[in-house]
Amino acid sequence: MTGSPFAALVDWGTSNFRLWIVNAEGGVLAERQSDDGMGRLERDRFGPVLESHLQALAAPAGLAAVVAGMAGARSGWLEAPYVETPAPLDGLYRDAVTPEYSSRRVFILPGVCQRIAGAEDVMRGEETQLSGAVASGLQNGLFCLPGTHSKWADVRDGAVSRFTTAMTGELFQLLSRQSILRLSVPEDARADAEHAAFAAGVDEATDPHFSLTTRLFSIRAESLLGSADGTAAISRLSGLLIGAEVAAMNRRYMPEGEVHIIGTGALARLYTRALGLSGIRASALDGGELVRKGLFAAARALVSVA
Amino acid sequence: MTGSPFAALVDWGTSNFRLWIVNAEGGVLAERQSDDGMGRLERDRFGPVLESHLQALAAPAGLAAVVAGMAGARSGWLEAPYVETPAPLDGLYRDAVTPEYSSRRVFILPGVCQRIAGAEDVMRGEETQLSGAVASGLQNGLFCLPGTHSKWADVRDGAVSRFTTAMTGELFQLLSRQSILRLSVPEDARADAEHAAFAAGVDEATDPHFSLTTRLFSIRAESLLGSADGTAAISRLSGLLIGAEVAAMNRRYMPEGEVHIIGTGALARLYTRALGLSGIRASALDGGELVRKGLFAAARALVSVA
Repeated sequence: MTGSPFAALVDWGTSNFRLWIVNAEGGVLAERQSDDGMGRLERDRFGPVLESHLQALAAPAGLAAVVAGMAGARSGWLEAPYVETPAPLDGLYRDAVTPEYSSRRVFILPGVCQRIAGAEDVMRGEETQLSGAVASGLQNGLFCLPGTHSKWADVRDGAVSRFTTAMTGELFQLLSRQSILRLSVPEDARADAEHAAFAAGVDEATDPHFSLTTRLFSIRAESLLGSADGTAAISRLSGLLIGAEVAAMNRRYMPEGEVHIIGTGALARLYTRALGLSGIRASALDGGELVRKGLFAAARALVSVA
Repeated sequence: MTGSPFAALVDWGTSNFRLWIVNAEGGVLAERQSDDGMGRLERDRFGPVLESHLQALAAPAGLAAVVAGMAGARSGWLEAPYVETPAPLDGLYRDAVTPEYSSRRVFILPGVCQRIAGAEDVMRGEETQLSGAVASGLQNGLFCLPGTHSKWADVRDGAVSRFTTAMTGELFQLLSRQSILRLSVPEDARADAEHAAFAAGVDEATDPHFSLTTRLFSIRAESLLGSADGTAAISRLSGLLIGAEVAAMNRRYMPEGEVHIIGTGALARLYTRALGLSGIRASALDGGELVRKGLFAAARALVSVA
């Protein structure tokens, strides 16, 4: 890719830092990744860390940077207050904040919040992936972003209309590594989307009378009574958790047509399979590509008006 | 209390050891408690540890000991295989095992298992509390034993007919101390049975469409959006978890009349309140007294036939 550097785009999460330098068409001139996540940085370190990564890519001195993610949290570089739902995804840049910082112009994009009694929710970072999907032409659809805290977002006319966070990934980690169930799940065992125990877990979780907390211990009991191996146990745990999430979201959002999964790899395969078992079609989108597109759309607005 | 020592009764759990010396009528002559739980003992330490506690109470050399709990687990002193449901609670002593041990006769009582496909379950220790309830005249009833792994047992004609374990207590600990929710729950905050947020959580969890994993994160979001304090947050978490357990058990066992809660203190109060909010009457029984009664009933059978 050639052309002059137009902007630096930064996806700055809790545990990861990702940087692209792009030209005026959004083409990637250089990129860089590290584990300099927001979770390990004091407030006064964000500027110097950003500068060191930009210098490593020989970024010009005046190049503006647009940042999405946890760098904008209260305990990050500078708080970028949440935009409330319904949140137009092509207008996030209007609520960007600018830290006091002499080296170059930096814009931190806001997260999105939902202030509905009984459905309070927040996201920070995922909205920029969604804005990348909108910039790619997906103005309407149900999006599923699997992860530690999975997000499901109903996008209508280019705006986040409603969304829900599920603590599926974090519960999976806590249950498989720290609860009594760890004794039935070898550390090297991985949930397998094609295992019969995964499908059985999803199926069970789809029952209208399913109750997660009163079913989990059966994984331990099955292994004590000698009827399940480690891969079956962890696949069943994964199936119960992802199945419970899919069933709840299916009721809440009643997807027509397909669900857009943002993510690739093993986790996306588990979600695709769980959705398929529930009769819902799923397609997978690349989250890294989407966040870059979302950041670029914001950069075009911010760098031209600044 | 007077009379000759008839037997030593031991409730030997994962983290606690409790010992009573009783006379032939079950009256307590001496007692002792320590944190010498099964979880911290190598197999060859059980005998010496028991002996040291018996000596501290000046127990006679020939006194037989009857043990219930995790000392009979596979990784305990000697495995006492599970008795299958329906498990007559006045006959547990028939499956007691005797470790090779020269100092005195020791009987370890079995646990109970349920080998029903899709409802596999195990208990070890709780069955002796239940046998104490049966020995006290409660031949029929629904029992709730709150704890790290809560047990609900349907007792019919003095036998455990069906039972279910809920991982409520362990999930509460993991979520409040180790998940993202810990940031919204101060370490010194305690769930309050009388707090409106507890009742609201129970109420929410009783909804037929309730889904735990997709509602937990709202506790974090509420505190980020400034609408909940620490006591409200932990009371709501407790209400959601206990409410989900009560709702599932209410569907599964459809209690007629009252539920017998085995336990006292703050946890029993939370369960009593959650049951009350669901229209179910609850009474509280003392678990320490019940396990002693159950051990004594077994001792009478074992020591007279031995």
